[in-house]
Amino acid sequence: MISDLQSTFSTSAKNMKRSAIREILKLTQKPDVISFGGGLPSADSFPVEELKEIVNEILDNDGPGALQYSATEGIPELKEILTDRYQKEGLDITSDNLGIITSSQQGLYLLGKIFLDPGDKVICGLPSYLGGISAFSTFGADLKGIKFDEGGMREDFLEEKLQELKENGENPKFIYIIPDFQNPAGITMPEKRRKAIIEIARKYDVLIVEDSPYREIRFEGEPQKTLFELDNNGQVITLGTFSKTFAPGFRLGFVIAHQDIIDKIVIAKQSIDLCTPTFTQKIAAKYISKGLFDKNLKNIIAQYKSKRDNMLKAFKEYMPKGVTWTEPEGGLFLFLQLPEHMDAQKLFYNAIEKNVAFVMGSVFHCDDSGKNTMRINFSFMSEEKTTEGIKRLAQAIKEEM
Amino acid sequence: MISDLQSTFSTSAKNMKRSAIREILKLTQKPDVISFGGGLPSADSFPVEELKEIVNEILDNDGPGALQYSATEGIPELKEILTDRYQKEGLDITSDNLGIITSSQQGLYLLGKIFLDPGDKVICGLPSYLGGISAFSTFGADLKGIKFDEGGMREDFLEEKLQELKENGENPKFIYIIPDFQNPAGITMPEKRRKAIIEIARKYDVLIVEDSPYREIRFEGEPQKTLFELDNNGQVITLGTFSKTFAPGFRLGFVIAHQDIIDKIVIAKQSIDLCTPTFTQKIAAKYISKGLFDKNLKNIIAQYKSKRDNMLKAFKEYMPKGVTWTEPEGGLFLFLQLPEHMDAQKLFYNAIEKNVAFVMGSVFHCDDSGKNTMRINFSFMSEEKTTEGIKRLAQAIKEEM
Repeated sequence: MISDLQSTFSTSAKNMKRSAIREILKLTQKPDVISFGGGLPSADSFPVEELKEIVNEILDNDGPGALQYSATEGIPELKEILTDRYQKEGLDITSDNLGIITSSQQGLYLLGKIFLDPGDKVICGLPSYLGGISAFSTFGADLKGIKFDEGGMREDFLEEKLQELKENGENPKFIYIIPDFQNPAGITMPEKRRKAIIEIARKYDVLIVEDSPYREIRFEGEPQKTLFELDNNGQVITLGTFSKTFAPGFRLGFVIAHQDIIDKIVIAKQSIDLCTPTFTQKIAAKYISKGLFDKNLKNIIAQYKSKRDNMLKAFKEYMPKGVTWTEPEGGLFLFLQLPEHMDAQKLFYNAIEKNVAFVMGSVFHCDDSGKNTMRINFSFMSEEKTTEGIKRLAQAIKEEM
Repeated sequence: MISDLQSTFSTSAKNMKRSAIREILKLTQKPDVISFGGGLPSADSFPVEELKEIVNEILDNDGPGALQYSATEGIPELKEILTDRYQKEGLDITSDNLGIITSSQQGLYLLGKIFLDPGDKVICGLPSYLGGISAFSTFGADLKGIKFDEGGMREDFLEEKLQELKENGENPKFIYIIPDFQNPAGITMPEKRRKAIIEIARKYDVLIVEDSPYREIRFEGEPQKTLFELDNNGQVITLGTFSKTFAPGFRLGFVIAHQDIIDKIVIAKQSIDLCTPTFTQKIAAKYISKGLFDKNLKNIIAQYKSKRDNMLKAFKEYMPKGVTWTEPEGGLFLFLQLPEHMDAQKLFYNAIEKNVAFVMGSVFHCDDSGKNTMRINFSFMSEEKTTEGIKRLAQAIKEEM
């Protein structure tokens, strides 16, 4: 071995920390633990039988094509199906505005790669998705958090921050927003707020990154227009994924953006993995074109709605006074707020002893705030285990109070 | 759109160039073109029928597991199978020394990510794999090329360069080597040279990155020990892939290294794509454990040997005097040398008009040398087309002479 490996690492690697969630999840992998910690889809949500049919069909008719390298920007049939789908939703795009990526996490990373130099400012929510925070941080970005209300990122605080940065001669590279059933907060941004934020982004000449993994999993209420559609003018970059609506084990996502941005992403992706797996792209294309995606989406929505209802019922029944939570209209997560003085990290270890787990909210706050919050996933555990788990969690909270 | 998108891009993105090969490949996609340009496995090399069986078995017995997220470092069963395989080959490793990655291209990128800051020196061959050159360049690395002889990278030139750098107070981050059937040169490094280079790396305290995509595709002659085995002391990082021996459409590779390096790679990979596709990992694990990998490898070797022989025959028959080429003992590529004064780039356009394509060797040279060389792939085209293609290529060369 060389004499000093540690000093050989890059600046970026020297600053790397293991993902807090991943480390926590290890603690939660004991078989008896009821974990609300991960963000995993339900095992029952996977269309195993339909997949068998599709995979056999692909291997019979297009075997060598499905096993070969493919274009960095994605296979044409999947690009076209998705372009068509989003055109119908009101997005003013062609297939040149859409690229397939190896998960939307890769999309977050690629956006960091093409936009961020060390010290560059990025605006994100307080709270915000940890995978976004990590991806941007790995490029040395300086994250500026904007506080939330029940409609998501506060537009007045956003404008205040952009004005402050402008006065310092700084222009953030983009504003990172998860508008629907936000991870971790479970909040959906209303149209009025979306429009206001687009206006502000235009005024301050800043791009918006719209991360949209959950939008299609809506249990009730009116679907909100995407930020991309409300703008339709190149200001917004939208990330989508099949991880919550199909199968995360395929690692398939996509990015929709101005063609010049897609071009840069494609060049950057060439160095990162040459292309997204052809095999899983072929499967996804056939799955959607046969109408199975939309059919199974209905199952997922029904399952997760029932799971959310069951969880909210358990919350109402067991949680002590002083604890509040969001009631998401869709997605996979809700957010729990403990009384101000409490610390979810301390609580975590007591909860683990009671064999129940969650993720402390502070990891989703780029300014280390949110110590009294926690993210609760409701998609993965069975309803029976959820009720038992919330009972245990409530007990742990009461003891800490 | 924002007012000045171009200036919003990162330094890395501003310096990005589209892969020369990718751009060339576009020219070669006309149906009549006989292309020796890409690095694609033969369509006949894919074990389609065996795969159907395996995929059905996985979906029947382990469907939800195969479709779910998995550990960043790879699924345990694939890690163990590979660890076991390489232990038997003589590598002193445990499964903590092995990580699964989304293609060995991702491995090259990850090594760049964890080791390279702008200006850092990397030693590579003249010539060297373009995907490595691009991945390292995207971090602003300063590549130093070392000339080849018939045994690959010249050890005396390597030591000279390391000494020169040392006198300037500079230590390169690693030496990048493809020891077996090198891409693009088709050259295999003999054991004596391997040992000498390891000695030099130890003396100058530099890591070695051993990129090994083709090693198992040997037609004849004695298999050479990997650099990893010859060192077995943490100095060498080895990259492997299933893209040439199984299916590139799965995007599966692996990295073998000191545990501290694997740890950094895993943390970096979390931000890049969270995990490698679970589905294709499960397929690969079952495929190997059933003995099908080794069985099909024999088919691949027989096919490619025949294709190489056929190509060498055509070379001997048609090439004019003054043209020389390597005769690789395995792999997918050979390297052609035109007389000194000739320019393969100029020749390329004449060749394309004759409906035959190759990659000019200059793109594999980090110092822009090699203008009179070209890389020829022999795995993809049929033997019949190969003979016709070499005839056309020889004609184009004669005309340029």
